[in-house]
Amino acid sequence: MGSLGRPDWAGRLRVRQHALSVANLDGLVVSGLPNIRYLTGFDGSAAMLVLTKDEVILISDGRYALTIQEGMRTGNLAAVRFEQVSARYDLTLVDVLKSRRLAHVGFEAAHVTVAGLRGWRQHLDEVVWVETDDLVERQRLIKDAWEQDVFRRGGLAIARVAARLGEWVRPGRSEKEIARAIERGLEEAGFSAPAFATIVASGPNSAHPHARPTTRLVESGDLVVLDFGGVLDGYCLDLTRMGAVGRVSAAAQALVAAVQEAHHAAVDAVRPGVEIRAIDRAARDVLDSHGLGPAFPHGTGHGLGLEVHEAPRIARVGADPPEIVEAGMVFTIEPGAYVPGVGGVRLEDDVLVTPTGCEVLTGGPRELLVV
Amino acid sequence: MGSLGRPDWAGRLRVRQHALSVANLDGLVVSGLPNIRYLTGFDGSAAMLVLTKDEVILISDGRYALTIQEGMRTGNLAAVRFEQVSARYDLTLVDVLKSRRLAHVGFEAAHVTVAGLRGWRQHLDEVVWVETDDLVERQRLIKDAWEQDVFRRGGLAIARVAARLGEWVRPGRSEKEIARAIERGLEEAGFSAPAFATIVASGPNSAHPHARPTTRLVESGDLVVLDFGGVLDGYCLDLTRMGAVGRVSAAAQALVAAVQEAHHAAVDAVRPGVEIRAIDRAARDVLDSHGLGPAFPHGTGHGLGLEVHEAPRIARVGADPPEIVEAGMVFTIEPGAYVPGVGGVRLEDDVLVTPTGCEVLTGGPRELLVV
Repeated sequence: MGSLGRPDWAGRLRVRQHALSVANLDGLVVSGLPNIRYLTGFDGSAAMLVLTKDEVILISDGRYALTIQEGMRTGNLAAVRFEQVSARYDLTLVDVLKSRRLAHVGFEAAHVTVAGLRGWRQHLDEVVWVETDDLVERQRLIKDAWEQDVFRRGGLAIARVAARLGEWVRPGRSEKEIARAIERGLEEAGFSAPAFATIVASGPNSAHPHARPTTRLVESGDLVVLDFGGVLDGYCLDLTRMGAVGRVSAAAQALVAAVQEAHHAAVDAVRPGVEIRAIDRAARDVLDSHGLGPAFPHGTGHGLGLEVHEAPRIARVGADPPEIVEAGMVFTIEPGAYVPGVGGVRLEDDVLVTPTGCEVLTGGPRELLVV
Repeated sequence: MGSLGRPDWAGRLRVRQHALSVANLDGLVVSGLPNIRYLTGFDGSAAMLVLTKDEVILISDGRYALTIQEGMRTGNLAAVRFEQVSARYDLTLVDVLKSRRLAHVGFEAAHVTVAGLRGWRQHLDEVVWVETDDLVERQRLIKDAWEQDVFRRGGLAIARVAARLGEWVRPGRSEKEIARAIERGLEEAGFSAPAFATIVASGPNSAHPHARPTTRLVESGDLVVLDFGGVLDGYCLDLTRMGAVGRVSAAAQALVAAVQEAHHAAVDAVRPGVEIRAIDRAARDVLDSHGLGPAFPHGTGHGLGLEVHEAPRIARVGADPPEIVEAGMVFTIEPGAYVPGVGGVRLEDDVLVTPTGCEVLTGGPRELLVV
């Protein structure tokens, strides 16, 4: 756990007051697993959380009973009332709601399927179900002091992994071997797991923005996209650096320079109060000016947290009205350009928004690594 | 790809006739990614599929454009009409549906959230949205010839990994090191990726059914749960074997013997025509008879396919009316018993239901591996 001790469970659970008073609910069912993890620390694969005025009830099954009891004892988990599922999650949820006689119950519209809601309704026709949107996500968007500390440590740790790329990217090595070496490096740097399947895309493969490592051997003249992430204390860091094997073509070098310029422009655009899409615009304008607009088919970045892709989305088209940058947000800046026949380039850092601009969490050199 | 060549895309897309004629729809929106993968071969992280009488339309974004075009050329992907998202998936979906003037459109109630449906409705108030359940899943439940071939090859390959466990499980090695060695072994055996994060749970950790590998060093007297899986041609295999380091306690040996007996009883119970819950009952009765009912907190198994957990669920409480075993199903048999102070035991194989019983895909010794 972090140098600041435990997460501030009580602070995180303040969402409960908001949900129950402002939204005028008797209870809120939280079913998004990252939301449950944020509020309680529970990180298993199945759970539901019911918040009422008096109680925080974690519903999970017998596989996790021991883990939950131990977690509460050590403070790694928030203090909750644990209800163990005996047969099916929905039946236990129904029992919990019935026994508390809750009438107006909120649910997370983005984390309950149409079929799931239909099932709950069949068992509980006396409950009025109220759609809620992003109650927990809005709180997760602004990282608290404990989270910011984790991200600062994580940024340093992943920069240390990036500093070792020169050991691993070598002509004659396969993309898969390099990916495995990076993942070993993430573990050695203290990450509990990769945040996603490491991308190593060399030569022609680099022109695929979402390539997976293949058995292709890296060779002279290749551009190599190296996109990797690690999980530290539950939080995801995400970084992309570029390698070049020997001398790459002038066209490839121009691509690298354009993406570096776009990356720089986007980082410069980050400060509280601006529209989030302005950050995307800053990167896109640079690539457009180099005739690379159509070669940049994805957004400029995405929020980081307990999930490797979370709010905000740094893209051309977003919410309406447009979202605004706020201090405490953490997201990636990762413009790219992909040109079949030349190759692909992406450059990615993670930033924490500060009151006056942003802090680049993932420092260290971001020039083309020539091996 | 498999020794039988390509998946039978045309055969898989026969779900379209069923959806459009039997359910009387003008179109069906498929949003479950494994369902899209099953029908088209597309295995990226974002897509939607629209089936109409005349067309199969794959909606995805620019990151995957090149992959999709190449996949169609090689036959790794079904022939589809590709619609590239320009800004947001929901807006492109709306355009596709509007331009085809579809009036009655089905959607997958288990794979569309309440918020997602609300968004579609806002943009398309002239469409009548019809909930559908498990249209594609029902077809996926019965593996076709190509899939059965993949599973047979996968079963042999994962049994080869299991045969090497003795190389890796050693006193003084950490759970994490052993997990990494197993994952390397999966790759060497031809799997493209682990099917899930490998579980190595030793000594007291073995009593947690869903433990994650820690830095704990395996020591004499430990029981070690080794639960690992691999992905072959997109399909998931899943296996659990037990290790014992030196001499384990008599109580631990009794636990192993009871779980072996339960595993045997469950495999024996598999044949077409029986209720699926009878397989769970067979395992549970054995553990109950040893006083271990409360020590078995999970189901006896789960279906395997493109997902590592899919239908059917082999559990006490299932669908109503009860599901029936059919030839062509593939699922795990994995009873377990977990006793704090003694340890945990799980034993898992994958079976393919045949017309007369079942074929255990994951052969090889399943005795306690003593190291």
